Amino acid sequence: MSRSTPSTAPQPTFVLIRPQMGENIGGAARAMWNFGLDRMRIVAPRDGWPNGRAVAMASGAGRLLDDAGLFEGTAEALEDCHYVFATTARQRGLTKPIVSPERAMQMAAEKIAAGQKVAVMFGPERAGLENDDIARANAIISVPVNPEFASLNLAQCVLLTAYEWQRTSGEITHYTDEMAKTEWASSMDVEKLAEHYEDRLTQSGFFFPEEKSEGMKINLRNLWSRMPLTRADVQMLHGVMRQMVRWKERG
Amino acid sequence: MSRSTPSTAPQPTFVLIRPQMGENIGGAARAMWNFGLDRMRIVAPRDGWPNGRAVAMASGAGRLLDDAGLFEGTAEALEDCHYVFATTARQRGLTKPIVSPERAMQMAAEKIAAGQKVAVMFGPERAGLENDDIARANAIISVPVNPEFASLNLAQCVLLTAYEWQRTSGEITHYTDEMAKTEWASSMDVEKLAEHYEDRLTQSGFFFPEEKSEGMKINLRNLWSRMPLTRADVQMLHGVMRQMVRWKERG
Repeated sequence: MSRSTPSTAPQPTFVLIRPQMGENIGGAARAMWNFGLDRMRIVAPRDGWPNGRAVAMASGAGRLLDDAGLFEGTAEALEDCHYVFATTARQRGLTKPIVSPERAMQMAAEKIAAGQKVAVMFGPERAGLENDDIARANAIISVPVNPEFASLNLAQCVLLTAYEWQRTSGEITHYTDEMAKTEWASSMDVEKLAEHYEDRLTQSGFFFPEEKSEGMKINLRNLWSRMPLTRADVQMLHGVMRQMVRWKERG
Repeated sequence: MSRSTPSTAPQPTFVLIRPQMGENIGGAARAMWNFGLDRMRIVAPRDGWPNGRAVAMASGAGRLLDDAGLFEGTAEALEDCHYVFATTARQRGLTKPIVSPERAMQMAAEKIAAGQKVAVMFGPERAGLENDDIARANAIISVPVNPEFASLNLAQCVLLTAYEWQRTSGEITHYTDEMAKTEWASSMDVEKLAEHYEDRLTQSGFFFPEEKSEGMKINLRNLWSRMPLTRADVQMLHGVMRQMVRWKERG
């Protein structure tokens, strides 16, 4: 299962540029690993490395931090990469393609499939990436946030990008849909249910007055046939009617 | 520009069920407002309401908290809603459609365009939604996270759902059709129907044996909430039950 060995699974590398708080580095690791990504690089973390707060925050995703590459500068961190994205909230009038996270991860998947190494840069918490960092990017990822309120933090920006990678990459697990295992009621099951109710309700005097009874019967049949009933539902509804009749008969 | 007046913009309502930490409520508000959503409801927050920590964390999105509806129970919070999603990490073998955030927000957009009120429930931080909450949902949203590591927090789950709403709503074509004229049953209509059946069936001795009665009741509630019921359907089903009782009483 490719999901259990993401170290060998093709994937982009996420590069944190001069991250400040250890908590955010740990949060970024968790966000990545939620979507099966585990290649992180870290450039010049403010509080040195390793960082106890990052480890504490990463909890189950601590392995990403152990395996993370540590670099002094952006240039070194990107050295072996063929295509680099920069994430940025503001648009800076640089002449580079600006793409959505979705489009970016589609592009990444195509390039990785073609044998390229792809990196995504995330800037420091407050300031964001510097022009010098952005100059090293081939394209810019801009999350389409509310223009009146753009306040994604580092881990959230990583999360959305990782989520889009997961969505886009071919290996999206079609997670077991409980519905697929559902035993749906057949037409005949529904027909018998409709008859059961119609018979008992006729006995009870439900279809009244006479001139409306045909229309009422059709409405009731339509109700059953419009519903997405399972076999278990049909059994339950038979049981409901049977019990009401039994109750009556006990007097 | 519709983004500047989201209060009137069509959108789903996000319902936080028994949230624990104020910080997470504030974080959820920010996550929503990043993508132009501002209708929040809060059910029984652990630390009371208003909550200073929520306000501090929400910073620029504080207005969502001021305008949030506060409710004692899940039922009350969903009363006027026609279609309800529950977000859950675990799958619980309930026979409800399980959909991705993307598909869910597409469905939400369609239903909202057809005149329905749509809600999305988010559970408390650790425990998640209870079965009793989930029984009130029409469908379940499951984020396709790494099966080995699912650790989305409340604000992150809200963020991804809001992000998908934003992605989807950009593409909505406003279709008007017969569906728009349908009078759909609200959650309260369905709730009352469920209660009516539960009360009468309890009297009749349907929920037997004792140790199975809770499970049977939840199954029956799930049956109603999964069905796409119109108000006319609900009236018909009330009528069916009333008639059976009348029949019994005539002896």
